[in-house]
Amino acid sequence: MMYLNERIDDLQRGGLRVIQRADAFRFGTDAVLLADFAAPRRHDRVCDLGTGTGIIPLLLYARENTISADAVEIQPDMADMAARSMAMNGLNEKIRVLPGDLRSIRTLLPHARYDLVTCNPPYGKAGGTLLNPDASKRLARHEESCAIEDVACAAAWLLQNGGRLCCVFPAARMIELSDAMRKYRMAPKRIRMVHSRVEKAAHLCLMEGMLDARPGLIIEPPLVIYDENNAYTPELRRIYGL
Amino acid sequence: MMYLNERIDDLQRGGLRVIQRADAFRFGTDAVLLADFAAPRRHDRVCDLGTGTGIIPLLLYARENTISADAVEIQPDMADMAARSMAMNGLNEKIRVLPGDLRSIRTLLPHARYDLVTCNPPYGKAGGTLLNPDASKRLARHEESCAIEDVACAAAWLLQNGGRLCCVFPAARMIELSDAMRKYRMAPKRIRMVHSRVEKAAHLCLMEGMLDARPGLIIEPPLVIYDENNAYTPELRRIYGL
Repeated sequence: MMYLNERIDDLQRGGLRVIQRADAFRFGTDAVLLADFAAPRRHDRVCDLGTGTGIIPLLLYARENTISADAVEIQPDMADMAARSMAMNGLNEKIRVLPGDLRSIRTLLPHARYDLVTCNPPYGKAGGTLLNPDASKRLARHEESCAIEDVACAAAWLLQNGGRLCCVFPAARMIELSDAMRKYRMAPKRIRMVHSRVEKAAHLCLMEGMLDARPGLIIEPPLVIYDENNAYTPELRRIYGL
Repeated sequence: MMYLNERIDDLQRGGLRVIQRADAFRFGTDAVLLADFAAPRRHDRVCDLGTGTGIIPLLLYARENTISADAVEIQPDMADMAARSMAMNGLNEKIRVLPGDLRSIRTLLPHARYDLVTCNPPYGKAGGTLLNPDASKRLARHEESCAIEDVACAAAWLLQNGGRLCCVFPAARMIELSDAMRKYRMAPKRIRMVHSRVEKAAHLCLMEGMLDARPGLIIEPPLVIYDENNAYTPELRRIYGL
């Protein structure tokens, strides 16, 4: 079933579709970039924290259909909508949606059983002045219910040794993200800066931390979204499957 | 005077020249990139730590000739050579070279009197296995006599509030550099990744920390050295004054 305020969007990948609400937070470029950056491996057991519409596990599955995923979402109606997206795609067996709070991850999901944890976390700071009055957008965009340290703490519970946490975060807050990973035994291993144009400052940062890994960081090539003609760069076209 | 194993290189900037030794560490691209990144302001009081040939204060002066600089170098013969470079350029009054150990900065230079501290520190790790047998190259390239924390500690002594420490460092060790800055009350404010080509991982990182500043980090556009034809990019040509 669907609600009147919902719509179905085609992901342009093997027929996969996602249900989104017109009046709530919808997935954006950052989710698409994160799914590409996370680069799931064959048979990876994945957990997506704060999954929203479920877009990230869907995109990961589109890329590597041997994965299985658990997806946690704190808002019951969003979790229900994401679960209906999985059913619509015939993926209930592969991608399980759990309503729940990632701060209670120990009661939701088993310890040290995952290869990859992903999170496109809320970007605002708790207590900021630009809180969106709509509760759904507020939860998705701000840190009322989820600080980046909570994400890292949950990932450290879920991952087995050598498992990876991949996040997208504002470039200006890159150091907070690496601090959070390191606080919970994850060494930053890969960082990729996202620039709207090659001559602009980065607005996003993609980061991979690895649990109990040796240090050794790679700053990957910059990810540039638009070329000098304001068209997508070849890499963005590849990532979007265009 | 000059020694037989020395040579004079023209910096291609307003007639400035630098004495270098054929058998010792000579300045490289990283010094040139750092001098550009540091962007001295009018009348800045500058201190360059581990100045080697004195190349960084010379390049800063070439860019902004209202600055004055003190340059610290631990190797007495290198400090002597750098001082002779300043004399050769008629800059003894503007750029003072001090032989000394930056770990003893409190006995060398006054507290809270500088606007800008620069350092192109040794890149190796103390105890690494690739120590260069030549003592001069070893001191310049490795951290026997200077860890990045010592650089940050010295900068925190030298800078006035709001003053800037600008360093170049291996990209893979970016987090060590930001940790060192933060340990000594400097907030990373600007980071610029250096990529030999836009599709390659970064090999260097340029970072500016500001003493007692509010957090607020900008990840600047990537600095790309070679274009797809293996020629310098327009920005590198600008930085090298070509």
